[in-house]
Amino acid sequence: MGVSPLIDRLIEAFQVLPGVGPKGAQRMVLHLLQHNRTGGSALAALLAEAVESIGHCDGCRTLCEKSLCRYCEDTERDDALLCIVESPADIIAIEQAGGFCGRYFVLHGHLSPIDRIGPEDLGMERLLNRVRALHPTEVILATNLTVEGEATAHYISDMLRGDVPTISRIAHGVPLGGELEYIDAGTIVHALQGRRRVN
Amino acid sequence: MGVSPLIDRLIEAFQVLPGVGPKGAQRMVLHLLQHNRTGGSALAALLAEAVESIGHCDGCRTLCEKSLCRYCEDTERDDALLCIVESPADIIAIEQAGGFCGRYFVLHGHLSPIDRIGPEDLGMERLLNRVRALHPTEVILATNLTVEGEATAHYISDMLRGDVPTISRIAHGVPLGGELEYIDAGTIVHALQGRRRVN
Repeated sequence: MGVSPLIDRLIEAFQVLPGVGPKGAQRMVLHLLQHNRTGGSALAALLAEAVESIGHCDGCRTLCEKSLCRYCEDTERDDALLCIVESPADIIAIEQAGGFCGRYFVLHGHLSPIDRIGPEDLGMERLLNRVRALHPTEVILATNLTVEGEATAHYISDMLRGDVPTISRIAHGVPLGGELEYIDAGTIVHALQGRRRVN
Repeated sequence: MGVSPLIDRLIEAFQVLPGVGPKGAQRMVLHLLQHNRTGGSALAALLAEAVESIGHCDGCRTLCEKSLCRYCEDTERDDALLCIVESPADIIAIEQAGGFCGRYFVLHGHLSPIDRIGPEDLGMERLLNRVRALHPTEVILATNLTVEGEATAHYISDMLRGDVPTISRIAHGVPLGGELEYIDAGTIVHALQGRRRVN
């Protein structure tokens, strides 16, 4: 219970944010009201605008307020490489890492029979159309290395078999800076199986 | 750099929140856009309304959208006890702890010559008027136990000397569950000086 009904409701509303509980929400609300009302106003206006106007890119299905996102719009990027990811956050991570300049396709999830998420929920029809439009020479399956991500990659690999010369999966292995001693057994098995000759 | 200019600006805007950096803001934005647009809309609307309409209570100066907050409005509370705190969050903490049912006064800060915050910035005139209107028998100085909080308590104690029979300061000491081994020296000195006879 806060000091006023409106503040209580605002503290409640802030708890829709991931990782924000009652204490954190209270701190955010009091901070904005006491120290940064301008920032609070700007946040409210932008959030309202974003919820209203942000849809999905017609090309890759990532979140975007225009019909094409900056990666689909970019004529410099390589149509021959198509990278399939689970979420827009994955595109951001790949772009921040650098080194990839092909096209993307966002599934917005992964196959999950338990949650009743099947191929039709992940836009497989759209993916097939995109592959047939771009004619990539390689499709990179960059879904997460979880059970669901693997199953999804497997399904897509089967589906695209006849349409793409090369279908690849991002490497499993020990992460950069990883110490074998602390790495789980499954990762070590994959790292050994995926070993590469260096001489 | 996110996927679209509007999303980038929204991620930036979320960073006005305390404890929220670029990664956390990105996670919040993507979560709202992908999974909870209704919650996002509600948050935006409430935040805009709050920034617009929340001011300070005419009685105790806490944050409030009406002229009097729920504690100043409440006729059941005891006018004889007036508790002075630094911020609205302190009122919430005291109320959640329970056991106090007097009146409040919020300073919205503490004396801090370095930041050029003097008595006039903390509403001392208003405090004096409130004390003279309520005629409390006791004023409880519940500013923080920091150097600035202590200085502020000292100043107020001097100021109210002639107007209030009893002026008290919340106790210094070892917190509940505290183990002496890990308590700082200053707290131990205070805990020893403030010892109470138990037999």
